[in-house]
Amino acid sequence: MGTTDYEDLTPGRIIPLGEVVVDHDEMLAFAERFDPQPFHLDEEAGKRSVLGGLAASGWFTASLWMRQYVDHLLADSTSQGSPGGRDLRWLAPVFAGDVLRCEMVVLGARVSKSRPELGLVEITGAAYRGDEKVYELTFTGIFGTRASAP
Amino acid sequence: MGTTDYEDLTPGRIIPLGEVVVDHDEMLAFAERFDPQPFHLDEEAGKRSVLGGLAASGWFTASLWMRQYVDHLLADSTSQGSPGGRDLRWLAPVFAGDVLRCEMVVLGARVSKSRPELGLVEITGAAYRGDEKVYELTFTGIFGTRASAP
Repeated sequence: MGTTDYEDLTPGRIIPLGEVVVDHDEMLAFAERFDPQPFHLDEEAGKRSVLGGLAASGWFTASLWMRQYVDHLLADSTSQGSPGGRDLRWLAPVFAGDVLRCEMVVLGARVSKSRPELGLVEITGAAYRGDEKVYELTFTGIFGTRASAP
Repeated sequence: MGTTDYEDLTPGRIIPLGEVVVDHDEMLAFAERFDPQPFHLDEEAGKRSVLGGLAASGWFTASLWMRQYVDHLLADSTSQGSPGGRDLRWLAPVFAGDVLRCEMVVLGARVSKSRPELGLVEITGAAYRGDEKVYELTFTGIFGTRASAP
């Protein structure tokens, strides 16, 4: 497969983005820096919380997913970033040692009216632990169109 | 001000969350680990992109905002995490050295029907560079109610 352009991201496509293991030490270091809430830092505080255990910051989960998306799709693409998304869901707590299987589904795609060299792709990204979806975000990805490629 | 409970987060409240300076080295280290796209890693690639310069990963911006939210509100609160959000917006590229003024606005609040000891608060978090909003997320925060406090 060559470089992924706008034209490759057709609605309905499901693209696997590999697996990542949640590393205990990195999970804690992330929480200490960006999300130092007790249930992200301390096992006992996690057990007492609604999360039921020492759980990853949702932003760590989102960032782990992002890296999978870069490695498995964006790195060889005409991506030009994202203006944002909707429906951000942390569906279940994520714990150290969890194996997160990452995936994306293309929901829709259209060429930009103001900049026809760019296409806007609506994507739902998700992470699963076994069959359980633990994270989801629907967002817009901006990609160059093949027609405009140099 | 004492501990922030559900009852303190009344719709319409605007709560300042302080300022953070975007650190060049940390911005790059974050991108290398979680979002290694060229325009997040390399000045020239950034200039050639729609971002117009070496710009922060949107997940770094979100994570910086989160830390401000923890330090200025959650640390002394009955927060029990968040199930997610909607309307995630990266409105403008963020660059090293930018000063981000963070803020939250309470949009709505209701007690959980299934767990009346918890309240669900709809919050819009935002980061501004001067008068320009560069980041926004509307999300649900879960807080303990004062009535249920031990």
